[in-house]
Amino acid sequence: MPTIKDVAKLAGVGIGTASRVINKSGYVSEETTNKVQKAIEKLGYVPNETARAFVKQNNKLVALFLPSIHHAFFSELAFYIEDELDKRGYKLMLCNSGSQMKKELEYIRMLKQNKVSGIIGISYNSIENDIHSSMPIVLVDRHIKDIPYVSSDNYEGGKLACRELKETGCSNLAYIGTFSKELLTEVEHRKKGFKEAAEAYGIQHTLFIEEDPIKDQTAFLNRFLDEYEEVDGVLAENDLMALELVQLALDRKINIPEDLSIIGYDGIEIYSALRPRLSTIRQPVENMGRSLVDTLIKRINGGTVTPVKHPVTFIKGDTTR
Amino acid sequence: MPTIKDVAKLAGVGIGTASRVINKSGYVSEETTNKVQKAIEKLGYVPNETARAFVKQNNKLVALFLPSIHHAFFSELAFYIEDELDKRGYKLMLCNSGSQMKKELEYIRMLKQNKVSGIIGISYNSIENDIHSSMPIVLVDRHIKDIPYVSSDNYEGGKLACRELKETGCSNLAYIGTFSKELLTEVEHRKKGFKEAAEAYGIQHTLFIEEDPIKDQTAFLNRFLDEYEEVDGVLAENDLMALELVQLALDRKINIPEDLSIIGYDGIEIYSALRPRLSTIRQPVENMGRSLVDTLIKRINGGTVTPVKHPVTFIKGDTTR
Repeated sequence: MPTIKDVAKLAGVGIGTASRVINKSGYVSEETTNKVQKAIEKLGYVPNETARAFVKQNNKLVALFLPSIHHAFFSELAFYIEDELDKRGYKLMLCNSGSQMKKELEYIRMLKQNKVSGIIGISYNSIENDIHSSMPIVLVDRHIKDIPYVSSDNYEGGKLACRELKETGCSNLAYIGTFSKELLTEVEHRKKGFKEAAEAYGIQHTLFIEEDPIKDQTAFLNRFLDEYEEVDGVLAENDLMALELVQLALDRKINIPEDLSIIGYDGIEIYSALRPRLSTIRQPVENMGRSLVDTLIKRINGGTVTPVKHPVTFIKGDTTR
Repeated sequence: MPTIKDVAKLAGVGIGTASRVINKSGYVSEETTNKVQKAIEKLGYVPNETARAFVKQNNKLVALFLPSIHHAFFSELAFYIEDELDKRGYKLMLCNSGSQMKKELEYIRMLKQNKVSGIIGISYNSIENDIHSSMPIVLVDRHIKDIPYVSSDNYEGGKLACRELKETGCSNLAYIGTFSKELLTEVEHRKKGFKEAAEAYGIQHTLFIEEDPIKDQTAFLNRFLDEYEEVDGVLAENDLMALELVQLALDRKINIPEDLSIIGYDGIEIYSALRPRLSTIRQPVENMGRSLVDTLIKRINGGTVTPVKHPVTFIKGDTTR
């Protein structure tokens, strides 16, 4: 935590002057007082031992950056993160930041000021220059410098889907999803695993991708169905995209899975009541949530950690043969 | 905030003794020290002006109780609550309490200790005796004493669904959903609106209900389809229940909407990509989230508020005629 020395240095005044402002004793000009107060605010300086102890005792708070409500995987993940934090005596602050980088930067500032103990970031913003591997931050699915991350084994997931489609008789495959020019995320590995497996099998395949975020998913999927009538096996980047593709294909009287097999990605629980049941690659969301918290708490306590990759499984539904 | 007097009283000691423990000055027996420390902890007493000011400046925190992740309506509501709190300078602490009343009681204690400023409660636990209308608490869909709540107009929603089914030619209606022996929730009004409208129309109708929470929703819905083959119009208690009923009916080769019309409740955004598109009563989730925050902040600032009921709308999909 910052000391009175840090305040004095940042304000460009002597320690005696800073002390007079803090303790409201003796004369200090208004201009200097303002400088010192700004430095106090910026550093999150807490002016005495009792208050410092109080802060320490009370800031067992972890912030979670969530990018979207329309992705049920994140809601499920948030649930397990909160549950595990609760078991470890921490509370969760929720930051639905989406594309609002400003909101994320505010929590990063709070972290620097010791007002939160750590951050779990599901972030697609360009926060590279504002975070550092010395801070207690753990990312989900994203690679920034050597900041620890937790993900599922996306490369294996892509391979697994490809193998499943091939083994059930598909001969013309497609991966449909997104790409990002700016961010390195685990979705790239999903795509890569699928592509490399298809190459190894010598099976025809296409990557049908559009820059993230896709503005009109229905139009995107219809374009795919128009242009790739010969494709008989698809891995879609997530369950919701796969579910919409299933419905659009059924609307066109395409038989599923006989003419077109479709595999989703995530294995989201709330979709399991829907029919046809989606075949999907399940990410172990509970294990991922608990391991995120475990990794973060190790970092809060100053320990070293390595990235964690969780194994995925194929769940057979009605949309593959 | 509690004072040294409160600490002394709770510990059963004099103010001088309490002061000696707090300031670590002069002799106090270990037993007495323990008593005072327990009282400090229980009351959340903060021992001086600086620390008190620090707490005040930092506790712009609101806790949200969420009962379940498997209900997308709550995730959407949480998103708008966080967004509105952020605009008002508050942070959100998320408490996925589900049936864990203990977790909710902990936040209620934190509220009493001024560690959080207010609570928005989507709670199905028996917290009646632990909360009071003088506290800054706002409930969603639940009625406890005169504690303020926000809901949609569930009575009108039930009526609206009934009218829609009747006007599109259904003649044998059912409401399917739940009841609760212990809690008075807004779901009762949904059911009541549907029932009273059907009675007013003189149309045949059934309430097919099971105690909340339904253990096996698939079995429950199959039992309904077995026992009520003659029903041609249904209002289901929420979208997810309606969606599963649609799929189970389609599996039985029941034509939707020709033989059976189905209306859901909530109007959840992430389901709108699914086919057949569900006809549903939409709750204005964004307005509800923002109005919850507005009501709570008025309560935090000591204002008086009245319950807010938001109008609902019928969204025509493919599952009604």
